[in-house]
Amino acid sequence: MQAAGPPSRFPLQQLNAAASGSEIGPRPQKDEFSDPSSMRSMMIFYLFYFLCLCLSVACVVCVCVWNSQWRGGFAWDGSSREFNWHPVLMVTGLVVLYGNGAVLYRIPLTWAHSKLPWKILHAALMFLSLILSIVGLCAVFNVHNAGNIPNLYSLHSWIGIAATALFAFQWVAGFAGFLLPWTPLSMRKLLKPVHVWLGGSILILSIAASISGINEKLFFVLKGTTNGTQPYSSLPPEAVVANSLGVLIVAFGLIVLKILSTSEWQRPDGSEDRTYAPLLRDESD
Amino acid sequence: MQAAGPPSRFPLQQLNAAASGSEIGPRPQKDEFSDPSSMRSMMIFYLFYFLCLCLSVACVVCVCVWNSQWRGGFAWDGSSREFNWHPVLMVTGLVVLYGNGAVLYRIPLTWAHSKLPWKILHAALMFLSLILSIVGLCAVFNVHNAGNIPNLYSLHSWIGIAATALFAFQWVAGFAGFLLPWTPLSMRKLLKPVHVWLGGSILILSIAASISGINEKLFFVLKGTTNGTQPYSSLPPEAVVANSLGVLIVAFGLIVLKILSTSEWQRPDGSEDRTYAPLLRDESD
Repeated sequence: MQAAGPPSRFPLQQLNAAASGSEIGPRPQKDEFSDPSSMRSMMIFYLFYFLCLCLSVACVVCVCVWNSQWRGGFAWDGSSREFNWHPVLMVTGLVVLYGNGAVLYRIPLTWAHSKLPWKILHAALMFLSLILSIVGLCAVFNVHNAGNIPNLYSLHSWIGIAATALFAFQWVAGFAGFLLPWTPLSMRKLLKPVHVWLGGSILILSIAASISGINEKLFFVLKGTTNGTQPYSSLPPEAVVANSLGVLIVAFGLIVLKILSTSEWQRPDGSEDRTYAPLLRDESD
Repeated sequence: MQAAGPPSRFPLQQLNAAASGSEIGPRPQKDEFSDPSSMRSMMIFYLFYFLCLCLSVACVVCVCVWNSQWRGGFAWDGSSREFNWHPVLMVTGLVVLYGNGAVLYRIPLTWAHSKLPWKILHAALMFLSLILSIVGLCAVFNVHNAGNIPNLYSLHSWIGIAATALFAFQWVAGFAGFLLPWTPLSMRKLLKPVHVWLGGSILILSIAASISGINEKLFFVLKGTTNGTQPYSSLPPEAVVANSLGVLIVAFGLIVLKILSTSEWQRPDGSEDRTYAPLLRDESD
């Protein structure tokens, strides 16, 4: 991914936001955004962010349509209709909500306010994403157990469970490190780059798990004459929709990682003296 | 991914290497590396790079062992033994060689020299990687055509062909943009961040394609009683080895992306006046 983009155009970017981890959000001055290059950079950001939101909606709609239209809809009864919650909840939770939670701090509109409410919203979005992912895993475990199918043998399941486990670890470590008041500054400074890197890595794992899962499911269910479906190899409408879902997920992931990796789009967190304000207190007041 | 790491420890990092794209490699002075924080950062880099090399060897050994030990070895006769070249060449070319070619500029040992030979080595490694990937694709097309199996219907194939097509485009654009002498400076400045982002994106696509491909292959061949194998769900030794290959590929990809995204490990390309030297000439002479 791109590590260092073009020279910083947003004010205070050079303070190296990701490294400082400061709570204090310096307020952008009105005239700072009237600089044409800042405006251009911000417009490009919003173009990417708009694309991110469009792809979010497209992914959720596509996975719901696939499972309701072609896979028989939803239930919670150990049947294949319970299984259908698995792709819907994993894509909605571990991909779409997760990605949107990750890029939250990059939205310039949020920079004019204290970081604390955005940290809480980030944690809340990630918590919701984690809960959806865990329920999505429960669905597939239930269906396997009801049908005496072994769990966690495929590579898809190994990558998916690793993504969810790392995500749970990341959430707990993030909560303890960045929201609890007694975490020492030195620990937070150490945790921050690891949190950012692990965050991107979990998204890459969830993309790989999604692609392998969709691919596996289509080979399972589109068997041709043996179960009255058209074979996957003849690309029936279901295959086109589900393959397109995979393409949308990859596009969404790449857009999110682009937003995360562009240094000029980072929230200008650093205060000049690198002071850390007390945690769990709205330090902008 | 991490966009901006801790404050730069390597000298001249703040010149924003990725953005400037300058050919002139400023020579690190001896005493610059004697700074303890630079030394520590360099040691961490080499730890990651060592891990990257170990994972490279492990991936290639693992994919070769899997296909020679359990899949019957190699041939070029339209049989399943020709298919075995596909995973070997894609993992070796599109993942391992590609990743190693991408991190080449990050090796501090190379910073003491002109960039041109490293650019040529980067282009050569990527070219070899592209050729291996194309031969790997030819293998699977040959086998499909010999067995009247349709091509390019699965999500795995869509993602894999997109990765290879983008890689071919990236190589041609990179060659034209960074090695041909008549490309205007403005074009190179525009191309550089796109080249870096597309480079990371292609690696993510190739990881997703690899995971879905290994997963699909194991479901195809480990069918249990129907073809005399143990079923995938009972995790026979072949499944453990091939699943482990998937885990190694993901680990390798994440290490490469970590190296690429850590700004303090970037080659200090920028010269202070941002001068561009003529291309295809060893400008350090």
